[in-house]
Amino acid sequence: MNIDYVSLKWNSEGLSFLDQRKLPLEEVYVKAESIEDAWGAIHEMVVRGAPLIGFTAISGLALELLSNRINNLDDFKQKCDYLKTARPTAVNLMFEIDESFNEVKRHIESNESWEDAGLLLKTRLNNQMKKLEEDNLIMAKLAEKKLSKLYGDKKLNILTLCNTGFLACGTMGTALGAISYLNSLGRIEKVYASETRPYMQGIRLTSWELQKENINHDIIVEGATSHLMKTKKIDAVFIGADRIVGNGDTANKIGSSGLSILCDFYNVPFFVVAPISSFDLSLDNGNEINIEMRSEDEILSCRGQRLAPAGASAYNPSFDISDHSLITSIFCEKGEIHPVNKENVLRITGE
Amino acid sequence: MNIDYVSLKWNSEGLSFLDQRKLPLEEVYVKAESIEDAWGAIHEMVVRGAPLIGFTAISGLALELLSNRINNLDDFKQKCDYLKTARPTAVNLMFEIDESFNEVKRHIESNESWEDAGLLLKTRLNNQMKKLEEDNLIMAKLAEKKLSKLYGDKKLNILTLCNTGFLACGTMGTALGAISYLNSLGRIEKVYASETRPYMQGIRLTSWELQKENINHDIIVEGATSHLMKTKKIDAVFIGADRIVGNGDTANKIGSSGLSILCDFYNVPFFVVAPISSFDLSLDNGNEINIEMRSEDEILSCRGQRLAPAGASAYNPSFDISDHSLITSIFCEKGEIHPVNKENVLRITGE
Repeated sequence: MNIDYVSLKWNSEGLSFLDQRKLPLEEVYVKAESIEDAWGAIHEMVVRGAPLIGFTAISGLALELLSNRINNLDDFKQKCDYLKTARPTAVNLMFEIDESFNEVKRHIESNESWEDAGLLLKTRLNNQMKKLEEDNLIMAKLAEKKLSKLYGDKKLNILTLCNTGFLACGTMGTALGAISYLNSLGRIEKVYASETRPYMQGIRLTSWELQKENINHDIIVEGATSHLMKTKKIDAVFIGADRIVGNGDTANKIGSSGLSILCDFYNVPFFVVAPISSFDLSLDNGNEINIEMRSEDEILSCRGQRLAPAGASAYNPSFDISDHSLITSIFCEKGEIHPVNKENVLRITGE
Repeated sequence: MNIDYVSLKWNSEGLSFLDQRKLPLEEVYVKAESIEDAWGAIHEMVVRGAPLIGFTAISGLALELLSNRINNLDDFKQKCDYLKTARPTAVNLMFEIDESFNEVKRHIESNESWEDAGLLLKTRLNNQMKKLEEDNLIMAKLAEKKLSKLYGDKKLNILTLCNTGFLACGTMGTALGAISYLNSLGRIEKVYASETRPYMQGIRLTSWELQKENINHDIIVEGATSHLMKTKKIDAVFIGADRIVGNGDTANKIGSSGLSILCDFYNVPFFVVAPISSFDLSLDNGNEINIEMRSEDEILSCRGQRLAPAGASAYNPSFDISDHSLITSIFCEKGEIHPVNKENVLRITGE
């Protein structure tokens, strides 16, 4: 069984990941031969994006089982716990590890062999990636339907933030997947990729993906958003989500909530594209979400070049919360949530 | 006569400028011995900021006259025209060159000597810088009065964009001058300096100035503004202005208009601090202002490090227009314009 995506490949030469730290200037694949290699790839951000982190975790567990060093559930549980430490805040990481453990546990408890458990997880990886690809396509089609309702078959100018494409998801992508799908139908006039300081996912990764797919685009700095919306016709903003809570409030890359407010001001639809796995209905509203603060060095330097004076300090929240009242629709694989409120979130996600 | 500011010095060792391109990592002064050197300092952005560009132009003309190579108005006019080409869009540059020419013309037409004309312009430079310093202090006091009215004597958290301090103005500064004045009264809790992509004036220059004055501050990326306003109490935003037109619409660094919209959303006062020389009453409203588009390389690379994939393109407007209805007050040396509208702009600037 060959698994062949741009960001994760597993073929006769083994498992390898595209090193996203080196994009867009170099396209280098890093081999992974052990669970420790998978841990390192997640921890060092060779791979990034919530779904891809989860897939990388499954592949790490599969590698460990295929090495035939594991022959009891306690040892396997220990390896699972170890892998969870690679990036403690990534929800998909925990989810995919727990699900993988449970699948292996059921397999062993049905008196199947440890020899087959590795292949079981490799098959699971393949299935999960295919499932996400199908789900992403469903979301993209929902987005296309909505835009056709709003704009007919006119070509669209779309703004996006961060990177939500096949690099982040392994397959197709969420917000950028929808944009890619629209482009395949000839519906894109131009994409504006907001560069996404401080980590520069927009200028480094989204621009690279858009180039790979020959999608017409310009990069802007975050500060240019208001001027762009005022002077050019922006038909929609598409973003992904790190977590969507009960009332529809959405945590996403820093800058998203400002975008939602500018969209409200300039009357531009603001769309979130995210799978059911991004919903966390244990929380009622966005104020309950803990915002990850990241190192100030991400701001004080840029790609290794010091920008700030020695001794300067920076405030670096990595995510922010877009209020549900400013989100036009959320597209998930179960349908369009519109208007975005508690009732509709429950209705669609429960269906 | 010694002229001694951080960004422009003219003493027994001659004229020199602080090279702002190398800040904050190096503090290097560049000597200027001719009008060509002054042209180069403006063109290559050794000096920046509308007022300092104007002062640099006066000093270049003074150098030329002091070299005793000029002995008729036609030749002097030619030198003036040459210097105007250093940065064609800077209004202060044209203004200070024209005023200097007129002063020399009056001097010569009163049968005074060409020998004295250089000293005349050096004196003019000194006077203009002192005048701006006095005017900046008047504006800062107006801002302090307003904040005391709003907040009593509570310590303040203030957000600013770009660099509007002594580096940009030669002396004290406009928006940052007001912040510095508030700090001298013990009124600052913390300043947030927005880094100001793509040219990074906030993280490179404003942070450097704030450090020099021991003002407590954090740097943020533009995308973090909304989260900052939502989660911390920001008492006011202060920005400068590149041009203020008849109805109070204000052109300023890209990102300013987005800030004004976020201020409106979060109910944070949005203040503009700018001298009368920044007003252009020949235009009725902001839509008439031509926005300078700058090289996309400013975005595609950062301090010499390539960020974007080869062949990528960027959209790089350098300024945007904040609508007068979103500006709480404009502080100029003639008073506070509040509310900001055509009637009040005319009333205060005409006084």
